[in-house]
Amino acid sequence: MPDHDLAGWRARVDAALDRALPDPDTPPHRLHAAMRHATLLGGKRMRPLLVYASGTMFDAAPQALDTPAVAVELIHAYSLVHDDLPCMDDDALRRGQPTVHVAFDEATAVLAGDALQTLAFELLSDTPVPDAIRLALIRTLAGASGAAGMCGGQALDLEATGQKKRGQSESCKARIHSDPFPRVSVSALRRLHALKTGALIRAAVRMGALCAGAPDDALARLDLFSNALGLAFQVRDDILDIESDSATLGKTAGKDQAQAKATFPALLGMGASRELLSDLAMTMDDALAGFGEQAAMLAALGRLAIERDR
Amino acid sequence: MPDHDLAGWRARVDAALDRALPDPDTPPHRLHAAMRHATLLGGKRMRPLLVYASGTMFDAAPQALDTPAVAVELIHAYSLVHDDLPCMDDDALRRGQPTVHVAFDEATAVLAGDALQTLAFELLSDTPVPDAIRLALIRTLAGASGAAGMCGGQALDLEATGQKKRGQSESCKARIHSDPFPRVSVSALRRLHALKTGALIRAAVRMGALCAGAPDDALARLDLFSNALGLAFQVRDDILDIESDSATLGKTAGKDQAQAKATFPALLGMGASRELLSDLAMTMDDALAGFGEQAAMLAALGRLAIERDR
Repeated sequence: MPDHDLAGWRARVDAALDRALPDPDTPPHRLHAAMRHATLLGGKRMRPLLVYASGTMFDAAPQALDTPAVAVELIHAYSLVHDDLPCMDDDALRRGQPTVHVAFDEATAVLAGDALQTLAFELLSDTPVPDAIRLALIRTLAGASGAAGMCGGQALDLEATGQKKRGQSESCKARIHSDPFPRVSVSALRRLHALKTGALIRAAVRMGALCAGAPDDALARLDLFSNALGLAFQVRDDILDIESDSATLGKTAGKDQAQAKATFPALLGMGASRELLSDLAMTMDDALAGFGEQAAMLAALGRLAIERDR
Repeated sequence: MPDHDLAGWRARVDAALDRALPDPDTPPHRLHAAMRHATLLGGKRMRPLLVYASGTMFDAAPQALDTPAVAVELIHAYSLVHDDLPCMDDDALRRGQPTVHVAFDEATAVLAGDALQTLAFELLSDTPVPDAIRLALIRTLAGASGAAGMCGGQALDLEATGQKKRGQSESCKARIHSDPFPRVSVSALRRLHALKTGALIRAAVRMGALCAGAPDDALARLDLFSNALGLAFQVRDDILDIESDSATLGKTAGKDQAQAKATFPALLGMGASRELLSDLAMTMDDALAGFGEQAAMLAALGRLAIERDR
């Protein structure tokens, strides 16, 4: 696997993120600092790497891919800031750093997330591609982020965690531990994650290909790959939450069980979860088979999602 | 003043909002219901009316204006949902209804606000105007909403309210009453509101004109009008907070003083605040003078902002 490409793309997107984020030395300083904290301190950059890998498959210029790579990472970063809030997952550690509401405060975390989302769409409107493609990128990312995508998946997750009435802040922590048994089916859990994690991964792969003007049938085959990848990513996350430790993960380990979250290992057992991962690896390979050697980097990223240890 | 036009435009945007928002009978039900609660239950629709008034000045078709009218109202609605959260303004009443985190819960309020913002940009990408104008609309609304606009203004407002460390939810309410004297200057307060309220009002007026392909010099004159209108709107808001009651306002009255907020009456006194309103009315008239009778509706909306009692 060509590690130097991945490292090069990571450096590209990190530099582009740094340029895109507002200057920490201009007001409002606290907001700008929080936006940068949320985005620049670590992260695997999986979604930007997918943009570069799929765009490169169809010979898009790397400069054209920088903007959608940044935009999808900004959406991902904003969702983490809001998901970590006390009234949501109430997490203090993310990417090995204090979460934004811990490092700053809750109000600033809400605003920083909001402004990161806005910035994603603002940047996409100036992607160096023709107008029609810019609009397709915006449509793709918005469709994947909103009520029919990531936000909708997070809402389903809240419902699945067995919280009937969360009410005010004070009661937020009380809901945790309230339900020892996850009460969703495997198919409902798959639907949930197809929105919560899958939609943005699918958008990342699509946006790269869109920049290069890839045809509809190629986009459809890429979707088959992305759907398997999104699910595999989540199954691996669930397994790591059980098997790894907070220092390795850079976020709190063992949290799913503590919160009685519906996870694949909880519903299927660890053995069947690993089998599911193997099945998904084959689905990914099959989806990319027709693209030949051009798809090598995308295939490598698929394997990385399954084999990663953080 | 042609009241029937305003009523017609209000009916148009209300119908368009209803069509644009996700179906309350499809999952995730709670998220969809919260998005609709935040948007459909009341509201003056000032920003959509500005879109129709400025678009009509330059002969834009009403169907072309529906989408930016809806989009700017969705951004406004999302900002209210997040501003009302316990860690922000902690408000229980809005538009005569319980706020979203009260009617639903905090996590759902965060997500509903997020998804409303996304929906605004998703809709704009399909406005029935040429691609270049669609992109200009997205750029205009995003620029006005993010860290350099509304979100930035809200961040400055948080800083001005004298909260050095807000920390976790439990401490959010403690910050209120913490500082009996607002410590910002009048010019800093104007800058704050130019972002917090003004940027979105300017975007609304610009978007209407952009749909009709209005020339740059017209946009610049409209900005002069909008800047005065945005400030007038806020000064009137500050006065109403003191002089009106919660039943009339549809939101909690007397809140600014209770929170020791920096307001124009607090800094200037009530008399000088009323004089400022008169000055701003003249600025608005001057800015629109060159447009003649075509600007009658926009001028009427300007007066309405100054004379309104809720």
